[in-house]
Amino acid sequence: MTTSRMRAEIGEQPAALRRTLDALLPRVPDLAALARGTRQVLFIARGSSDNAAVYGRYLAETRTGRLGTLAAPSVATAYRTRLDLSGVLAVAISQSGKTEEIVQTLDWAADCGASTVAVTNGAGSPLAESAQVALVTEAGDELAVPATKTYTTQLAALAVLALGLGADVPRDDLRRVPDEIADLIARAEESAALPEIVEGLAGVQGVVVSGRGLAFGTALELALKIKEACYLHAMGLSYADLLHGPIAVVDDRTPALLVAAGDGPTLAGTIALADRVRGARARAFAVGGGTGLAAASDAALPGPDLPEWVAPLGLIVPGQLLVERLARRLGVDPDVPRGLNKVTQTD
Amino acid sequence: MTTSRMRAEIGEQPAALRRTLDALLPRVPDLAALARGTRQVLFIARGSSDNAAVYGRYLAETRTGRLGTLAAPSVATAYRTRLDLSGVLAVAISQSGKTEEIVQTLDWAADCGASTVAVTNGAGSPLAESAQVALVTEAGDELAVPATKTYTTQLAALAVLALGLGADVPRDDLRRVPDEIADLIARAEESAALPEIVEGLAGVQGVVVSGRGLAFGTALELALKIKEACYLHAMGLSYADLLHGPIAVVDDRTPALLVAAGDGPTLAGTIALADRVRGARARAFAVGGGTGLAAASDAALPGPDLPEWVAPLGLIVPGQLLVERLARRLGVDPDVPRGLNKVTQTD
Repeated sequence: MTTSRMRAEIGEQPAALRRTLDALLPRVPDLAALARGTRQVLFIARGSSDNAAVYGRYLAETRTGRLGTLAAPSVATAYRTRLDLSGVLAVAISQSGKTEEIVQTLDWAADCGASTVAVTNGAGSPLAESAQVALVTEAGDELAVPATKTYTTQLAALAVLALGLGADVPRDDLRRVPDEIADLIARAEESAALPEIVEGLAGVQGVVVSGRGLAFGTALELALKIKEACYLHAMGLSYADLLHGPIAVVDDRTPALLVAAGDGPTLAGTIALADRVRGARARAFAVGGGTGLAAASDAALPGPDLPEWVAPLGLIVPGQLLVERLARRLGVDPDVPRGLNKVTQTD
Repeated sequence: MTTSRMRAEIGEQPAALRRTLDALLPRVPDLAALARGTRQVLFIARGSSDNAAVYGRYLAETRTGRLGTLAAPSVATAYRTRLDLSGVLAVAISQSGKTEEIVQTLDWAADCGASTVAVTNGAGSPLAESAQVALVTEAGDELAVPATKTYTTQLAALAVLALGLGADVPRDDLRRVPDEIADLIARAEESAALPEIVEGLAGVQGVVVSGRGLAFGTALELALKIKEACYLHAMGLSYADLLHGPIAVVDDRTPALLVAAGDGPTLAGTIALADRVRGARARAFAVGGGTGLAAASDAALPGPDLPEWVAPLGLIVPGQLLVERLARRLGVDPDVPRGLNKVTQTD
C-alpha cells in the first residue's frame, strides 16, 4: 500500500496539537481581557475553517452563554455595508492567514466596532498582523491539499478561546487530546469497520453526513473532505435539517455517515436517526457515538474517549483516515485533488 | 402532459403574494415599534423556512445595518443553554406554525430577553400565538409537499419586516412583485431553456447550485427542492464556498446551476463563476442574472425584472417550474416525494 502525504499529516496531529496547546493555553488571560465587555462572537471563515467555526459557535453558545454567528463575508466585501458590531468579538479563522476576503472582513468588523481575534497557522500573515489577539496554531507546514492538522489545531485554538470566554470546563480535558488522538489513530486503523466503510462508499452515488450540536461541524468537515478528495456527492446536514426534506435522498445507493461524541444531549437523536436511515433501507455508517450508535449502525469507526466539548478535536480523525483510504480506492491522489489550491483567493 | 398540484400552486403565487402584502404591509408600524431598541435579528427556522431566513438575514444586514444570525435550535432544545438575547429581535419562520422545535426555540428566545416575531401561514397556530407580532402569510392551503407559495409569501413577510426595521428601499418595488411573477411564469414556460435544462439534469449524478449574497438563499432553496422532489444530489453553496473545495465535484457529469438577480454587487462574480465552471468542462445553467449571465451559460431561464432586494421573491419561481418538470421527467410524483410529511416534527 502506498502512503500519502495526507496520511503522514494525519499522524502528525498529536504532536501538532501538543505544540499548539503549549503555545496557546498561556494566551487565555489575553483573550479574557479582550473579551471583557463583549456579549457575542462573530466567526469569519470559509471552507474547512468555516467548519471549525461551527464548532466554535456551539462551544461559545453552550459553554459560555454567548450568541455565536457565522459572518456573511459578502456583506463586508461585496455590499460594503456598515453594521453595529460594538460588543462583538470577531474571530477570523484562516489556515494561511492570507485569504484576502477573510482579512478584509476582519478589518471591516474592527471598523464596525468589534474586538478582533485571528486563528491561523500563518505566523506573521496579514490576518495575524491585523488582529488584536492572534492565536497562531503550531501545525507546521501542511503539504497535502485536504486540511487535517491545520483543522484540528484550529479546533484546539477555539477550545482555548472558550476558556478565555470563561467556559466552565476542565482544562485537563484539552490536555488529554493529543494522546487520545494517537491512540484513536491506532484503533481506527486496526478496526474492521475501516475497510468495510471504504468498500461501502466506493460504489455509491453520494452520501449524507450528519451530526448535531457540537458534532455538527465535524459532519460538515467530513462531508467537505469527501467532496474535495473523493469527488462524491456528500451532503453535510444536521439531524433536524436532514429530517426536513433531504431524508428523501437516503436509499440503497445513498448511505448515511453519522458522527457523534460518546456523550451529550444529541447522542440519543443520532442513534434514532441511524434507526430511521436503516428503516429507509439505506446503510448507516458511524464515527464515534459509543456502543449505542455502533449497535444501531451497519459499521462503526471508533470515536475518541473524550467529553463532548472537546470530542470534535478527535472525532474528525477516523473520518480523515476514511477519506484518505477512500480517495486512493477511487484512484484519486488525496494529496492533490483536482481544482484546488492550498490558498484559496475569493473576493 | 399531466399537471400536478405543485404546478397549480406555483401559479397561485401572484394571488397569494397580493393577499399577503395587503395583509402585512399595514403591520409595518407594529414591527417598527417592536424593533425599537433592538440592534440585531435572530432567525429561527428549518428546511425551506431556513432558506427564507437566509434571505431575511442578508436583507437585515445589507438594508437595515443589523447583524443577522441563524439560530442553532439544539442550543435551546437539546442543550437548554441560556444566552443573553437582550436587544435581539427573534424571528421564527414556520409554514405550519406547529413544528414544536421552532415554537420551543422562540419561547426560549423570549425567556432569554429577545423580542419576538412569527412568520407563518398558520393563523392561530402555536407559533402565531406565541409571538409578540405574528406576520401571518396568506398563501392559502398548500397541498403539494414541496413548499412553493408558502415559501415566497414568507419572503414577502421578511421584506415587510425589513421595512419595519427601517430599510431604505422603495415600498413600490414590493407591490410590483405579484404581476412580475405572473409574467415570469409565462416567460419561463415559453423559454426553450426550460426543456433544455430539464434534459440536461435528467441524466446527471448531481448538481451544484450556487448564488451569492441576497440570492444565496434562493440557491439553497432550489438545491433543497431538487433533493426532496427529484432525489438528485444537489448541493447549495455560496460562490465563495464553492471555490473553497467543492469546485472539485463539478465535471462533465455534474453541472452547476447558478442563480442571480439582474443587478447588484454579486452579479459579476456569478458570471465569472459560470466561466470557471465551463472552464472545468462542466455545463453551467442559469436562472436570472440578465443577459450577462445568460451569455456565460449553456442555457438560462429568465429571472424577474425586479431590483436585487426583492428579486429573490421571483427568482425561485423558474426554479420551481424546473423542479416540477424534472421530477415528472424522472418518474417522481412531485406532490408526494418519498420520506416527507407536510409538517415535520423534530426535537
